[in-house]
Amino acid sequence: MDPLLIVSCDCHAGGTPDEYRRHLDPAFRERYDAWLADRAGQDARLAQALGVRLAEIDPGDAGRGERRGPLSNHWNAERRIAVLDADGIAAEVIFPQPAGAGGPPFYPFGQPADPKDPALVAAGCRAWNRWIADFVKNSPAPERHAGLALVGTVADVGAAVREVEWAREAGLRGVVLRSQPFDAPPWNHPRYEPLWAACEALEMPVHTHGGETPEYGDLPGSRSIWFTEVCWFAHRLFWHLLWSGVLERRPRLRLVFTEQFADWVPDLLHQLDALHAGSVAGMTRDAALRLRPSEIWARQCTLGGSFLTRRECERRFAIGVANLMWGSDFPHDEGVWPGTREALHATFDGVPEPELRAILGENALRLYGLDAGRLRPIAARIGPRPQEFAAARGAAA
Amino acid sequence: MDPLLIVSCDCHAGGTPDEYRRHLDPAFRERYDAWLADRAGQDARLAQALGVRLAEIDPGDAGRGERRGPLSNHWNAERRIAVLDADGIAAEVIFPQPAGAGGPPFYPFGQPADPKDPALVAAGCRAWNRWIADFVKNSPAPERHAGLALVGTVADVGAAVREVEWAREAGLRGVVLRSQPFDAPPWNHPRYEPLWAACEALEMPVHTHGGETPEYGDLPGSRSIWFTEVCWFAHRLFWHLLWSGVLERRPRLRLVFTEQFADWVPDLLHQLDALHAGSVAGMTRDAALRLRPSEIWARQCTLGGSFLTRRECERRFAIGVANLMWGSDFPHDEGVWPGTREALHATFDGVPEPELRAILGENALRLYGLDAGRLRPIAARIGPRPQEFAAARGAAA
Repeated sequence: MDPLLIVSCDCHAGGTPDEYRRHLDPAFRERYDAWLADRAGQDARLAQALGVRLAEIDPGDAGRGERRGPLSNHWNAERRIAVLDADGIAAEVIFPQPAGAGGPPFYPFGQPADPKDPALVAAGCRAWNRWIADFVKNSPAPERHAGLALVGTVADVGAAVREVEWAREAGLRGVVLRSQPFDAPPWNHPRYEPLWAACEALEMPVHTHGGETPEYGDLPGSRSIWFTEVCWFAHRLFWHLLWSGVLERRPRLRLVFTEQFADWVPDLLHQLDALHAGSVAGMTRDAALRLRPSEIWARQCTLGGSFLTRRECERRFAIGVANLMWGSDFPHDEGVWPGTREALHATFDGVPEPELRAILGENALRLYGLDAGRLRPIAARIGPRPQEFAAARGAAA
Repeated sequence: MDPLLIVSCDCHAGGTPDEYRRHLDPAFRERYDAWLADRAGQDARLAQALGVRLAEIDPGDAGRGERRGPLSNHWNAERRIAVLDADGIAAEVIFPQPAGAGGPPFYPFGQPADPKDPALVAAGCRAWNRWIADFVKNSPAPERHAGLALVGTVADVGAAVREVEWAREAGLRGVVLRSQPFDAPPWNHPRYEPLWAACEALEMPVHTHGGETPEYGDLPGSRSIWFTEVCWFAHRLFWHLLWSGVLERRPRLRLVFTEQFADWVPDLLHQLDALHAGSVAGMTRDAALRLRPSEIWARQCTLGGSFLTRRECERRFAIGVANLMWGSDFPHDEGVWPGTREALHATFDGVPEPELRAILGENALRLYGLDAGRLRPIAARIGPRPQEFAAARGAAA
């Protein structure tokens, strides 16, 4: 049997400060330098926000070690490819790092701070978009990286559309939106129609990635409350575009929900179908959807299941075997690397081969339009064999 | 076998405008009269918010009919008792109606509108609290009604505490808080300690009831988005008081989550226990809880499962058989009345008698300190027999 072609649907990367500076519009470089000068303060605030020790924050352009750290080892294509090879992963989808840790300048991805200046956010995202496009192009194996474009502000919808068009042209494979448009009306507002039209026409899947919420302040328990709620905010895009009719009207628009757990999907679809059917009396529907919400999910949505657990994998039929991907979350500390193979066995042992192939790679291959012709020989060289997963978990080795 | 002693943990009532006027502090009567004068406008907005036809809104002090309507038949103790008898329900827990439909004046319970004047909200809630206390006292069978006090603003925590003390003194059985303190800091703020202390010391269970969210505006799909999200907002009190350590520090404080579905509890407890155990690396805990979140839930929380479905009832062991109650939601249209007995069979057929007794009545009897000595003879007269539920669903009659 052919080895498995594995795609990690959730990896992170980021440039060095010098690299970002080069990719940043000159008008913003002075502010970037001032931001960099406060780098120690940025790192300390990031460490506090993430709940990690300051020493675990990658120091940026200097001193990058070989150690296992939450944010290390993400900036160098050769080293990334060595990690992918060791993990048995043929290709990866790349999200940015959090800001201040090799992530885009001026973008609060994964941080509670919320810069209120849309021009600044747009410039920071543009620097990321240009950096990741160059990173992929200059990699020794560009076919192994699917870079995603950040659209961190939709205050100017026309500018957001132009960024998506640029990203497609530059070879990026999808768009990352914020969990909600903090500086603009909610996602069900008609003003975003041109953005959905562009993402559909250009076949750019639209992503949310767990990490963003409104601000919580510094109160007892706030950090754990944030952890409890953060994924829910990332889910919201689905039912905003569902009930406002966007997904039904645009059947080729694709949504991807990455690193926000997977266990919630079956109960949510049950709830939405009940609401749609009007089976809870008095809850009349205001969006005249012809399809059931679960049908729209099946047609247009994919769950990017980073460090997917066995418990979540067991719900794969209710989520949709064709609607579930696996991700390593490299190089983050909550991800599976460097224990990737053990983690794969813990989750997938005993799962039949067709389901294994779909979840571990084929769904992502299709969704992102990756180059199967170039990836299959790589998978043949590094991928695990499906029979390695044949033994049911707990059975004799 | 003794008939079942059934307690509905979720019923609604409200006074006539004249009754509320009498119970309202005189300083607010002029504003109340102005509000009443706009009653037609209030009703129209309420109908729109609830998604019902205007004709289904109970017109208040006049024209209350016998028809099955979402908001009818809630104001008269004799008629309520006849409904309870017909339903086989020995006792009921009473929440207010939505404002403008027999609910308290100036309180936006179940409505998107959010009056910003804490003094006005406090006066409206006080009118409800005094009305429901009188309603119970003047009923031909006070032991069959457990009235709950509304604390609709916590802008003044001392005033909120005094209201809880008054309510206890007046014979009310618990406190209803808003899903979040819209006019004050979030529930994990230390400023609420006196409120939790009072509710614990006075053994007043603290409730949220599904219905309140931030404002959504009038955008495509907004109403269905509201329905999708509304219960989540009512759950939040649990993890705010969990992670801020309030529940562990106050082991006799009781929380009740009413009419917000039940299926979410097992997955939530799984998530919170994982977060507490630090099993998701990098997610360190900031509240040093000795007990696991699921242990705190089991000790202190109860789910008020209005129109509980069979699917939810099947999760009773993960929710906790001792932590689940059933409610009819009388007189609301989404509730089970007048098909109460059929609904009970649809959900509970085949459930063993001890679980049936716990969920349908004994849990509420204990939680609210109801008068078992007076309720058991009533149950003996009107309650269904447990053997009626003995046949598994789908088995031959």
